[in-house]
Amino acid sequence: MEIKLKSFGFAKNQEKKHVGGWGEVVTDLVIEKQYEDALLGLDDYSHLLVIYWMHEVNIQEMRHVPQGKVGVVPEVGIFACRCPQRPNPIGVSTVRVLGIEDNIITVEGLDIINDTPILDIKPYTPQYDVVDSVKVPDWVNRLDY
Amino acid sequence: MEIKLKSFGFAKNQEKKHVGGWGEVVTDLVIEKQYEDALLGLDDYSHLLVIYWMHEVNIQEMRHVPQGKVGVVPEVGIFACRCPQRPNPIGVSTVRVLGIEDNIITVEGLDIINDTPILDIKPYTPQYDVVDSVKVPDWVNRLDY
Repeated sequence: MEIKLKSFGFAKNQEKKHVGGWGEVVTDLVIEKQYEDALLGLDDYSHLLVIYWMHEVNIQEMRHVPQGKVGVVPEVGIFACRCPQRPNPIGVSTVRVLGIEDNIITVEGLDIINDTPILDIKPYTPQYDVVDSVKVPDWVNRLDY
Repeated sequence: MEIKLKSFGFAKNQEKKHVGGWGEVVTDLVIEKQYEDALLGLDDYSHLLVIYWMHEVNIQEMRHVPQGKVGVVPEVGIFACRCPQRPNPIGVSTVRVLGIEDNIITVEGLDIINDTPILDIKPYTPQYDVVDSVKVPDWVNRLDY
């Protein structure tokens, strides 16, 4: 089943490669002017989910060793990690809102490179997005964040 | 910019309408056999993010009154709520894993109807997905979950 969607904005920052350490990266999400009205009320939230298309990803894998840490973490199925080489290279990242002005949302901690197409923006909502007791495998704690 | 993606599985449950109260709904995510290997290691996590295509949504709005609660909650931009009538009807839901067997992932609390196409599955990872101090507008607490 094939699905078509459109990007209505792009990420603008100084990042050209995925090198990690995104915590303090500041990114402007530049939304098409025609969608500016759809941002009404978004400034009442502290955090957003940004859904984006990892346009630079051109390989798809069934298994992957996260962050290339061979010997440190196991090879797992691509659905068992957050690595980009997925059947659909869609990313979902939680970020802090620094400010919104007209059609530009400025966020902190977004782990994507310059010119990444934006597919959706959702308000981070504890009732939907926060889980208190989470179990993850030990190797997840050996990755770089 | 137009983007093409494919569904590699479908949600299977007894739900035909969006009526709320999804907390105890059990859904099977039936993944195409060819992607079964991509699930390796997923059973080490307690929760997943499910990314899906809300195939039954056929209108797109710039503003919306969440859950139709006119007079209770304000009309906001579609990016300031989790309502489905978005430019790209992509949904992101956090769910609990009940079990995985072969190419079928059984989850609890997924708020989507039967036959919804699945676009991606990601492990819920506190380092990426948990925010401690979140600000949301008051009206969000007057919605039904």
